[in-house]
Amino acid sequence: MANQERGIIPRKVKGFRDIDTGLNQLRWKIINAASKIYKSYGFEHWDTPVLEYADAIGKYMPDEDTVDKGVYSFKNPEEEPVLDKVGQALRDSNGQAYMENAFVSMRYDLTAPLARIYSEKLLGKYQRHQLNQIKPDLFRRYQFGPVYRYEIKLTPGRFREFWQIDFDSVGTNDVAADAEICMVLSDALEAIGLKRHTYIVKMNNRKVLKGFLQSCGVIEEEQEQAILRVFDKLDKIGWEAMQLELGKGRVDSSGAEVAGLNLEESLIENIISFLRSFENAGTRKEVLTQLSANLSENEIAKEGLEELHKIDGILEVLGFDEERVIFDPTLIRGMAYYTGPVFEVESLQSYTDDKGKERKVGSICGGGRYDGLIENLLGLKVPATGASIGVDRLAELLKLTNQAPEKANGPVLIAFFDEDLSTEYQRIARELRTNGIETEIYYGFNKGFRKMKKQLKYADEKNCPLVILIGENEAEKGVATVKNLKLGKELADSISDKREWNSRVQKEVPLTDLADYIKSQLEV
Amino acid sequence: MANQERGIIPRKVKGFRDIDTGLNQLRWKIINAASKIYKSYGFEHWDTPVLEYADAIGKYMPDEDTVDKGVYSFKNPEEEPVLDKVGQALRDSNGQAYMENAFVSMRYDLTAPLARIYSEKLLGKYQRHQLNQIKPDLFRRYQFGPVYRYEIKLTPGRFREFWQIDFDSVGTNDVAADAEICMVLSDALEAIGLKRHTYIVKMNNRKVLKGFLQSCGVIEEEQEQAILRVFDKLDKIGWEAMQLELGKGRVDSSGAEVAGLNLEESLIENIISFLRSFENAGTRKEVLTQLSANLSENEIAKEGLEELHKIDGILEVLGFDEERVIFDPTLIRGMAYYTGPVFEVESLQSYTDDKGKERKVGSICGGGRYDGLIENLLGLKVPATGASIGVDRLAELLKLTNQAPEKANGPVLIAFFDEDLSTEYQRIARELRTNGIETEIYYGFNKGFRKMKKQLKYADEKNCPLVILIGENEAEKGVATVKNLKLGKELADSISDKREWNSRVQKEVPLTDLADYIKSQLEV
Repeated sequence: MANQERGIIPRKVKGFRDIDTGLNQLRWKIINAASKIYKSYGFEHWDTPVLEYADAIGKYMPDEDTVDKGVYSFKNPEEEPVLDKVGQALRDSNGQAYMENAFVSMRYDLTAPLARIYSEKLLGKYQRHQLNQIKPDLFRRYQFGPVYRYEIKLTPGRFREFWQIDFDSVGTNDVAADAEICMVLSDALEAIGLKRHTYIVKMNNRKVLKGFLQSCGVIEEEQEQAILRVFDKLDKIGWEAMQLELGKGRVDSSGAEVAGLNLEESLIENIISFLRSFENAGTRKEVLTQLSANLSENEIAKEGLEELHKIDGILEVLGFDEERVIFDPTLIRGMAYYTGPVFEVESLQSYTDDKGKERKVGSICGGGRYDGLIENLLGLKVPATGASIGVDRLAELLKLTNQAPEKANGPVLIAFFDEDLSTEYQRIARELRTNGIETEIYYGFNKGFRKMKKQLKYADEKNCPLVILIGENEAEKGVATVKNLKLGKELADSISDKREWNSRVQKEVPLTDLADYIKSQLEV
Repeated sequence: MANQERGIIPRKVKGFRDIDTGLNQLRWKIINAASKIYKSYGFEHWDTPVLEYADAIGKYMPDEDTVDKGVYSFKNPEEEPVLDKVGQALRDSNGQAYMENAFVSMRYDLTAPLARIYSEKLLGKYQRHQLNQIKPDLFRRYQFGPVYRYEIKLTPGRFREFWQIDFDSVGTNDVAADAEICMVLSDALEAIGLKRHTYIVKMNNRKVLKGFLQSCGVIEEEQEQAILRVFDKLDKIGWEAMQLELGKGRVDSSGAEVAGLNLEESLIENIISFLRSFENAGTRKEVLTQLSANLSENEIAKEGLEELHKIDGILEVLGFDEERVIFDPTLIRGMAYYTGPVFEVESLQSYTDDKGKERKVGSICGGGRYDGLIENLLGLKVPATGASIGVDRLAELLKLTNQAPEKANGPVLIAFFDEDLSTEYQRIARELRTNGIETEIYYGFNKGFRKMKKQLKYADEKNCPLVILIGENEAEKGVATVKNLKLGKELADSISDKREWNSRVQKEVPLTDLADYIKSQLEV
């Protein structure tokens, strides 16, 4: 590299992207609508840092020397003391603290930081040895913002930075809070603009699955988790491949070998026939009846069924029938930490991709009950439940299915003709703004660059509805020419005569009437 | 460390903090009000990644092996090709690309990423060799979000993560855009709630300073920058210390030696007397007259003065007099990249600190013209100007000076008495929400933890205005007891009789009238 010079190239880190004004409009429509619904249920708005200690968000175990893959992590540039189990510095025999550069991670979701906040708050209030006697506080918050995944292979449309908006109830084991999650998700999606019947909230209970597997003889946690991970692929790989992965394994479409779990044939058959029996599951009550018939003997399954019964009862009274919420015993949700009810919202819409292929949108929200997550940090069991809307994912859905709102109007643009009128442009702009009209003055690079064509192109790209033209002549007469770009585009096809088009699209307006005229044009 | 076990302690990375609902309320009040003003001037909302290549935001020079201190940086976990000056991979004699783990940085401001966006957009549109012939596009955007500084010593109230909201015009050398910045800042601060006369927008022009220093014989860029850095400390260290630092140096209050610039005595005297002559600067016009008298001989100073004249003219016509915008020839603003007008908003308010000492709030916004920043990335001179409001800084100011809005109402809380009424609570909550009333049902941990005292404490901490109590008796009668916590607090001092207090604060309301009653109570 000795003789070659490196350069500084303006570029983004792989997997990151800029968000333009159109996409921001969509993103904030989603965030504002969802926030309002979350707030109406009593969730408070909190925020946490983008950067966290990897261990404090559960992604770095002391006995390993690397962070979980998929988490965007670094070594912190400063050395800090290594802490013991009660947060004191670990010291050598001379009393010197052990120092290290700790792993820090860009947060990979908003749930782990919530567990960290809650645990930290509790430790601020109580001594560690008091924890086993206390009554965990109830804490309900919502949060939105970017989360990060360190994905090596990035397929189109996948990013390392994307936004989520979460809501959670920490400190309650009442499954009414889980029923509420279905309502919040449904209300939020409809507030965002999704029509009923274009999405469905699906719910299951991990306890039912756990109970079923127990009744088949699967007792060990590890084996259970392995089986659930295979179940979770059903939507992607289909029944046959799933059956193979429970058994001897398979070769996937890329030619790669996928190891199987090598379960016994009879167990696999049991599992598959259980799951398939819910392929065309009926109403929530029918699902519950069918589950009860199969699982009435197992304690943990029974507990799960009782919870689902209570949830169904609440949803029924509030009018949330199967148009909005169904029970789906095949639903898993990937995370290992879920312990009870799990949720997913599936979009029922499809779109045509670049290659003309019909594609399903798939999952747009997910969540579940995680009664063990805080225990990892605190040694105290604190039940919790919550869900997340994938903001960027949903924005993508709205665009793909042509439900995104039209690009919002840009400002009214005052074209720049004459340096001597600079102050007059400013005066007019201010008057319009005072009348509630967003108004920009075109500040071209310099005189040579202020061609009218360039200014109109700028207005067009910015979706400006109107352009105000004031040259020397207009200024002397005390008028402005107002050009209606929006109308101009609409009429462009139907009117071929340039003069007629001009007379419809352009109007000379006295400066004294300008604000009123502009307002009337914007209201059309 | 062999025998000692390390722990996983729930904690934040040093210098980071959580934002609770009260602070979020303030933060978003600022962001929403400022965004609305920025938008009314035609700035579009853009967003950029939190993580950037250090070199692409100008903080890592190829011939150095470390990033500027103060920038929170890491080595990216993946190896990528080293690029040459046109963005091609650098290769060895065998054609193998040189690979490296590039430095990535948490963005330290929103201006550098803007320069990166703009340069990237231009390179997407044109070939590199075409750049010297093109007319740079006009691009006006606003952006808000967290920025990061890697500060080793953190004083109270300083954080490594804090929010800014910026607006910039790229591609214009018209100083009308700089005059506009004063107006935008003033309008935004007043929209946020600052009263006139509690802040002042200060403006200077680097060209005037540069011209003055030239007229004193300071020609070299390096020496000029060194002198400006000392000027910039004036507010902090005062005249005497500044004079010493221009000369032989000094020992600061901590006993540390501060090296001096060793300028000649006559030059130092010239500089000090120039700056001091503006200590009690008058109107903008008086400042301009005084500057002209001193600097009419120097070309660059004259150019700067003409710009200030034009800016003054615009501000005058629009009614922005010295109540809002002054010219301050002693204003520097730290950044080396400023080339023309610079801005600062100083809060004129003070507050009493923990130790009872009266303190000034100081600077809350800053900005300036940076005609050379994009040139570093693109080799093309693109003039640009903009400013930034320190969101968290301003939030702090509003709190310190008791101008923060009262903590917003929490939701109406439905207390939890009876498991059998669970569904009824849900029904009532939904009815209230349908009537636009934010309503939460208390989901206590479990029965033993649902003591009324705990529920009322929860309502109090969450600033709930009303609590709805429905036990078995109320349910049978079809009524609810509504307790007005807000009124209760107000009456607590004036009414000592418990029965009278209760009769004023609590009311039994038929469930059929509940929504209307609650609304009437919330309106009081």
